[in-house]
Amino acid sequence: MDKIQSLTGMLDQYDDGDMSNTSSKLFEVEKIIKNIFLNYKFQEIRTPVLEDANLFIRSVGNSSDIVNKEIYSFNDRNDKTIAMRPEGTASVIRSVIEKKLDQTTHKLWYLGPMWRYERPQKGRYRQFNQAGIEILGIPEGLPEYEMISVVCSLIEEFKLKNCSIKINHLGARENKESFCKALVDFLEPFKKDLDKKDLDRLKKNPLRVLDSKNAETQIILQKAPSIKDFIDQSSIDLLESIKNEFSELCRIEIDHNLVRGLDYYSGFVFEATSSELGAQDSFLGGGRYDQLSSQLGGKDMPAIGMAIGLERMANIAKIDHVNGKLVTFVIAASNLEPKAYKIAHHLRSINREITLDISLSEGSLKSKMRKANKNNSDYVIIIGEEELNNRTAVIKPLKDELGEQQTVSIEGLYSFYESL
Amino acid sequence: MDKIQSLTGMLDQYDDGDMSNTSSKLFEVEKIIKNIFLNYKFQEIRTPVLEDANLFIRSVGNSSDIVNKEIYSFNDRNDKTIAMRPEGTASVIRSVIEKKLDQTTHKLWYLGPMWRYERPQKGRYRQFNQAGIEILGIPEGLPEYEMISVVCSLIEEFKLKNCSIKINHLGARENKESFCKALVDFLEPFKKDLDKKDLDRLKKNPLRVLDSKNAETQIILQKAPSIKDFIDQSSIDLLESIKNEFSELCRIEIDHNLVRGLDYYSGFVFEATSSELGAQDSFLGGGRYDQLSSQLGGKDMPAIGMAIGLERMANIAKIDHVNGKLVTFVIAASNLEPKAYKIAHHLRSINREITLDISLSEGSLKSKMRKANKNNSDYVIIIGEEELNNRTAVIKPLKDELGEQQTVSIEGLYSFYESL
Repeated sequence: MDKIQSLTGMLDQYDDGDMSNTSSKLFEVEKIIKNIFLNYKFQEIRTPVLEDANLFIRSVGNSSDIVNKEIYSFNDRNDKTIAMRPEGTASVIRSVIEKKLDQTTHKLWYLGPMWRYERPQKGRYRQFNQAGIEILGIPEGLPEYEMISVVCSLIEEFKLKNCSIKINHLGARENKESFCKALVDFLEPFKKDLDKKDLDRLKKNPLRVLDSKNAETQIILQKAPSIKDFIDQSSIDLLESIKNEFSELCRIEIDHNLVRGLDYYSGFVFEATSSELGAQDSFLGGGRYDQLSSQLGGKDMPAIGMAIGLERMANIAKIDHVNGKLVTFVIAASNLEPKAYKIAHHLRSINREITLDISLSEGSLKSKMRKANKNNSDYVIIIGEEELNNRTAVIKPLKDELGEQQTVSIEGLYSFYESL
Repeated sequence: MDKIQSLTGMLDQYDDGDMSNTSSKLFEVEKIIKNIFLNYKFQEIRTPVLEDANLFIRSVGNSSDIVNKEIYSFNDRNDKTIAMRPEGTASVIRSVIEKKLDQTTHKLWYLGPMWRYERPQKGRYRQFNQAGIEILGIPEGLPEYEMISVVCSLIEEFKLKNCSIKINHLGARENKESFCKALVDFLEPFKKDLDKKDLDRLKKNPLRVLDSKNAETQIILQKAPSIKDFIDQSSIDLLESIKNEFSELCRIEIDHNLVRGLDYYSGFVFEATSSELGAQDSFLGGGRYDQLSSQLGGKDMPAIGMAIGLERMANIAKIDHVNGKLVTFVIAASNLEPKAYKIAHHLRSINREITLDISLSEGSLKSKMRKANKNNSDYVIIIGEEELNNRTAVIKPLKDELGEQQTVSIEGLYSFYESL
């Protein structure tokens, strides 16, 4: 019978606890990130995978790459256009508005798969993972510090080297608009020198031209107006203050060309990059988006957030070997398996923090011992016919520092295991 | 501007750490279940949300409710029929075959959202959550004990009352087929007495008639042939042995009418039910499915698995209050916020196990203290202008047993916090 394959760009992930395995490392990265979110008292929110596609068109903006070419959408049985969520923020705000929670303050986190339809490339899949946080209901001020504090914590916990945080301020909406107009005016005489992509950006979202990877465009931009001249002194002061407060913890630079890819940002924006990541060097980014709630039909609600690309983070994170205790339980007499199995069941129930492996398949004692060694077990517990008759068990440490092999009573085994 | 709503049958879930909140409880249930899976040395597998719809039609079977009416599918841009996964097992086996891992043994777990298209009802959503485990590559024997052992562990950890485990054996494929034929022959003269649903089952998957909720059908079935007379003595012995080994841990009954809804089961099958759940009383189920791998184009691979309905489990689970340490950090002078904030950042980094909340919005000391009390904080750390100038901080315990308020140096604060 022919095999059914996974769909293009969709990945299966297996954990084997080994940090050289990409999936295992990703899962561990997720655990550590969740712990940091908890450490900051963010609370989990889970929104559905499927949303009305209009949510993303209206929020993320139709000049962004996400909506332009990447959104994974389809028509449902009622011909409504449904999207697999491409990012987390729009759904969070949709939910807060729908539940009429848009007049209180929140600190929320999410983590999960997102989708895009673009042609898969090396390391880029159609289903990928993001985690993010949002601080809702609080205007510019401490939330900006909290965001950069979380970024510094991530850099510290994952022992990231060669990375830096770029920060910028896009001003209030009026400032952003004036700057935008000035930039368009400045670029007008250079139109003939821009490539197709930059021309398209100029038309749909001029600020994105600042992100251009084209070297010629970047030369032109050297003389372009700077957002710095369009924003208030208080905005510049905020950037300086944040830089000062965190600069001894990680490299922070003010980069007035940082604009971020999504339309909904205004005010403070930031991004963390690592030189270990190649051309697409950003592994997290965020900013303030005070207009998004009203844009989606909610109340005015100041908000700031960030999202972390988990595959990229896993790519650069340094994680020490994860060390849980592992015990292998070997039954050395096949006709007594159920009785011996019951002892294993009891062991597991008295200490859930220990992983207890049982050889479930047939095999010689020797092959089972070999597997226990290969799995890096701390101890092997062996029960054969003699042990079962005498109500005893053999405890064999597999690491020198754990002592000598001993035969104990079943009760002795239980207390040994409880105290591990 | 009009609001964009969530899609029909799709739920937003918020965690607030309170076990009377359904979402919070569900998240906690997930953590405990993952810990049990780890305790048994199952390893995580994550398959994509989207699959070729044929995968489920060929595996779960087109007589099952899942494929008949419930599958959430759509046509993609190339007119291929894509399904949001309705369950986990088929994808796991598809993946194991695709990665050519179908000749080794595995113990795998998964947890995540699943989808069905049926009309949403009270407590039943189009996106819901399941966790599951699979033991692959090992024939009947200890894996059956391992499955029931996990069920007993779940019952123990969630302090489930009023529940029981039903077990049955459907025999090898030949036995199942002979029984099926006998059942059809027996029901032939009663066709006129069956309702539409049961007639449909009789045609497509006769064993499912045994599951009928129709009282008249159940009366007819009292004289029907029993699977017990079609299976080997060794199968009956296995049922008896499992019942004996686990009966002091939880209520186990042999129920020869238990057939399970999915076509791919043969051999040992089981289900756990709770009388607290109403008519749909099963909260987990599973069984052996030795033929599924070859049915999906893989090698012959014996396999057994189970899936847990997480919303149902959360419905009946008893969970003690989850007690993490919570400290609230109050900055009592708004112009000194950045400097004080930096102290909070450092506190978080020296002890990630403590949740440190900071009042990020403006407000009086009094209102911030009130919030700290409301959140059930263990301590409040207060830093105002005087403290910042003297490099001191005030530590105020909010629970009597934690001692008296004290003023300490910043270094004293750090060591206090580290030792919490």
